[in-house]
Amino acid sequence: MSNSKKSPQADEKGITVKKTDDMPEWYGQVVMKSELADYSPVRGTMIIRPYGYAIWQKIQDYFNARLKELKVENAYFPMFIPESFFAKEAEHAEGFSPEVAWVTNKDEDSGERLALRPTSETIMYDSYAKWIRSHRDLPLRINQWCNIVRWEVKDVKLFLRSREFLWQEGHCVYTTEEECDKEALMMLDEYVRLCKDLLAIPVIPGKKSEKEKFAGAKWTSTIEAYMPDGKFLQSGTSHNLGQGFAKAFGITYKGEDEQNHLPWQSSWGFSTRLIGALIMQHGDDKGLVLPPSIAPIQIAIVPIVFKKDTAPIDEAHKVAKELESYEVKVDDREEYSAGWKFNQYEMKGVPLRIEIGPKDIEKGQVVIARRDTGEKYFVKRGDLKDKVEELLQDIQENLYSKAQSNIDENIVEPKDWNEFVKAAEARKVIIAPFCGKEDCEDIIKEETKGANSRCFPLEQQSKDLPEDCTCIQCGKPAIGYAYFGKCY
Amino acid sequence: MSNSKKSPQADEKGITVKKTDDMPEWYGQVVMKSELADYSPVRGTMIIRPYGYAIWQKIQDYFNARLKELKVENAYFPMFIPESFFAKEAEHAEGFSPEVAWVTNKDEDSGERLALRPTSETIMYDSYAKWIRSHRDLPLRINQWCNIVRWEVKDVKLFLRSREFLWQEGHCVYTTEEECDKEALMMLDEYVRLCKDLLAIPVIPGKKSEKEKFAGAKWTSTIEAYMPDGKFLQSGTSHNLGQGFAKAFGITYKGEDEQNHLPWQSSWGFSTRLIGALIMQHGDDKGLVLPPSIAPIQIAIVPIVFKKDTAPIDEAHKVAKELESYEVKVDDREEYSAGWKFNQYEMKGVPLRIEIGPKDIEKGQVVIARRDTGEKYFVKRGDLKDKVEELLQDIQENLYSKAQSNIDENIVEPKDWNEFVKAAEARKVIIAPFCGKEDCEDIIKEETKGANSRCFPLEQQSKDLPEDCTCIQCGKPAIGYAYFGKCY
Repeated sequence: MSNSKKSPQADEKGITVKKTDDMPEWYGQVVMKSELADYSPVRGTMIIRPYGYAIWQKIQDYFNARLKELKVENAYFPMFIPESFFAKEAEHAEGFSPEVAWVTNKDEDSGERLALRPTSETIMYDSYAKWIRSHRDLPLRINQWCNIVRWEVKDVKLFLRSREFLWQEGHCVYTTEEECDKEALMMLDEYVRLCKDLLAIPVIPGKKSEKEKFAGAKWTSTIEAYMPDGKFLQSGTSHNLGQGFAKAFGITYKGEDEQNHLPWQSSWGFSTRLIGALIMQHGDDKGLVLPPSIAPIQIAIVPIVFKKDTAPIDEAHKVAKELESYEVKVDDREEYSAGWKFNQYEMKGVPLRIEIGPKDIEKGQVVIARRDTGEKYFVKRGDLKDKVEELLQDIQENLYSKAQSNIDENIVEPKDWNEFVKAAEARKVIIAPFCGKEDCEDIIKEETKGANSRCFPLEQQSKDLPEDCTCIQCGKPAIGYAYFGKCY
Repeated sequence: MSNSKKSPQADEKGITVKKTDDMPEWYGQVVMKSELADYSPVRGTMIIRPYGYAIWQKIQDYFNARLKELKVENAYFPMFIPESFFAKEAEHAEGFSPEVAWVTNKDEDSGERLALRPTSETIMYDSYAKWIRSHRDLPLRINQWCNIVRWEVKDVKLFLRSREFLWQEGHCVYTTEEECDKEALMMLDEYVRLCKDLLAIPVIPGKKSEKEKFAGAKWTSTIEAYMPDGKFLQSGTSHNLGQGFAKAFGITYKGEDEQNHLPWQSSWGFSTRLIGALIMQHGDDKGLVLPPSIAPIQIAIVPIVFKKDTAPIDEAHKVAKELESYEVKVDDREEYSAGWKFNQYEMKGVPLRIEIGPKDIEKGQVVIARRDTGEKYFVKRGDLKDKVEELLQDIQENLYSKAQSNIDENIVEPKDWNEFVKAAEARKVIIAPFCGKEDCEDIIKEETKGANSRCFPLEQQSKDLPEDCTCIQCGKPAIGYAYFGKCY
């Protein structure tokens, strides 16, 4: 490796802080150095760089395929929302008012101020009222991929909090509450599956407390991921909106009885925040660690060239051809050393690296290094495809079960309030009986310096509570066991 | 067909005006009644409904696959652009200033006003200046799919003109002018191919005159479609931006000579306007006519049910199974009559309709109706797949050549200015020698009541002009033959 080989950027150092020592600093470095995203000159906003956007695109492709199966259609509604639309649903308006950014130009027809969408319920439901006439038009299932603006964010946390972010928002309309409930939970289940299959992230699905539910919803369900630093990350939500929006926007349908009825509505969404979860969940001190299902590059092949012997380069391309059903990148650039390339692909979290040197060609083998454990394998060329498939599957499963263990090992069921506070301080996954009241939740948050209820897990919904089960904080009757913890 | 079968909406009439009689009215009706798009309550904006968005998604999928081939990566930059960024490139700032919408909140750090992007050159190149260090970082090729705001539009024309629209914008950086020229034209060629392969629209590729070029560009190339009403529709552009933006934003790279150099830049884009071109180009008095390559539904299968004999429904699903490599929809809804369904799929431009009645089952056949010509075929079940493939290909080619004929039949090369004005009035495809000067172009536009130069066609770029070739209007030396016409 000669000295003339240089890095493309001045800063070629790896991550300079351990993940366990300073997670926020580690996180920022990983995002920047793996080139997932960058800060923008506009306060509160971020740039999603190609490597980060490729992950988002994989999430979109996966989810679009699921939406097609589920007969949800994509559409696009204007970003501008007339001020009066917010006012139509009182709770919704109150919930979003601090977050809204406005355009200086008013609508010429109505003279109204126009907001940049913080969410699209109101602008969509105005059209729904026009489009829906009969029970035959239901269920109506529409999704939109778009940018969202929430101005209250001042200090950007890349992927986690920014004034502008990308998301999908689904908005469905049903004739009955039962169907609405069922499909809102079906979408939450889709989110659980997406997190597992693509991102190798185990999430806890559950219902939000009254205080934490969406502004204007009957109930809100959520998927909660638990990060290695002991904080929860809300990663997607699905709401039964009840009939409030239908009433406010005049959405009615003529039933088989020829009478007009109010329909039921759901909405559900996840955002580029999922990429933040992905980074925190699996990354290590060398940088990003990506599950094979979501990795833009699944296998990096690095030929090791000595004394201008280009045989390894030819071999690398042959191997790439054999593995063309995967996302493979051959890095045969001459101006970078093999060592520098190894560091790069580790930083970028590429699941498998294949090294091919002159000796390997002689022996009819390649060297495979897996990113998650660092293990190296000497693999005969004849076994290559099988071994790659096996390793990729194993990495996917390993990352998931490691993350699951992190939850399992941190679950605590405190006996009393004192233990609860200690567990919150230790950033545990707390499960405890809860009254679900807003004022009690306020006290919990204050006394634990930030912990709140994450959700009432879905798995307990069908179980009966013990008869005299009382809230861990206030001692009044509990409505269920809830998860608690600090959060992003 | 009993009377109890009703349409889902009150308005079940077809298109009430002929395309040749009143193209704008026809266009509006087709877009609304085929449910491609809708008006929004916010002035100047539109809603892309699921059927329209499915077309946009097909365009995205096709083009994303091409971008991957061409090593262009997708990314996402903020929608907010600081006011000072526009000022950095003077021509660009002047070109866009009337179109810009602003946010009421200013950037807290700089105190600057923030614009909603009318195009993203400036916000992207600010980052490029940070990212690009060495010649090894070039070429840099980034594309972004996003929403764009141009406030000067007051009256929306669905898909054609609106305050907010969707587009892709590619922004590349090169070491040499030659490479930049080559790839900017390569992208224009990609646009030509997309229009042909997907949309069955023949377009004329060429270079814009000085007056018509992009604000800040060295040169602008364009693809021009010619609509059946004799007006051109600019359908995509690709620019060599020269080095002006690089200078303004401080983008430099260290060459192999270890010196700093200014790079060359290109940008290129097309928008949801393409869907407008698609509608106008192929539609007829019954509604939309979609080329098979872009049709969200390629084949609609309608079982004809008499007296509760459900055999045709089973048969329809069998046929759908056989044709599953296509986008097939079986419409077995009982509440709508077969005739109503036929009208619906004609309105929506579905390329092939397959009818299956009890008699057809007896005879071992289906009836296929093609949307473009209205022809009907009785096809033996054994020949079905081959016939479908043949018909879909034939429709795609037929629509393209019909559109090509419309250009060919309308090309006029006027002998003098008098003939030119007459041809412009008759909305012809005018080809004439042109000096390319701005003041001459102003006169042309005024005297023809709206016609201007569309482009200097690329195909003539290598040919020599006759020596004494003079401008059709001013008589000064011509720089080439240009196409002229009225436009959208």
